[in-house]
Amino acid sequence: MNTETTPKAEDNVIFVGNKPVMNYVLAAVTQFNEGAKEVTIKARGRAISRAVDTAEVVRNRFLLDVVVDRIKISTEELTSEKGDNINVSSIEIFLKRP
Amino acid sequence: MNTETTPKAEDNVIFVGNKPVMNYVLAAVTQFNEGAKEVTIKARGRAISRAVDTAEVVRNRFLLDVVVDRIKISTEELTSEKGDNINVSSIEIFLKRP
Repeated sequence: MNTETTPKAEDNVIFVGNKPVMNYVLAAVTQFNEGAKEVTIKARGRAISRAVDTAEVVRNRFLLDVVVDRIKISTEELTSEKGDNINVSSIEIFLKRP
Repeated sequence: MNTETTPKAEDNVIFVGNKPVMNYVLAAVTQFNEGAKEVTIKARGRAISRAVDTAEVVRNRFLLDVVVDRIKISTEELTSEKGDNINVSSIEIFLKRP
C-alpha cells in the first residue's frame, strides 16, 4: 500500500472559487458526514467573502455543532499572465466538529 | 463632562465599504499612529475581501509590528428595501500593536 496516493489531510480542504456558495457548503457537509473532524475552507481575492458565506451556512444551517476553530489571513504573491508580481489576500477558515 | 458623548472604543473601528483599499488602510494607520493599541476592521458581504486586504496591507507594508489578534465571522440579518429578511456574512479583524 502506498500512502502517498491517499493524502488524507488534503481531502479536508475546500478551495472556494466562483461557483455558487451551496456547492462548497455541500462539499464541506459531505466531508464532515464522512467522518472528518476538521475541514478547512480556503479562498483568495474576491472569493474570500464566499468562503465566509460557506462557513456561516455550514454551521448555522446544516451542522449546528461545527465551530470556527481558527481563521488565518495571509498574502500570496502570484505572477500575472503579463509576468507582473501581484499580491493577493487569502483566508483559511478552520472548522471543527467536537 | 459626559463620557457618553466620547465613545473612545468606537473610534478604533474601521467600517470597510466600497471605497479603494488605501482609504481604509490610511484610516487604520492614522488610528495606530495616534496611539491606539487595537484597531478593529469590520465589513459585510462583498466588502469582506477588502477588509482582509486592508489588514494585510497595514501589517505588511506600513506597520510591521501590528499583528492579527483575532478574527470573528458572523451572520447579520438585514431587511431589504422590499421588506425581505436577508442574511449577510460579516467579518471583524482585530489588529493589535504590542
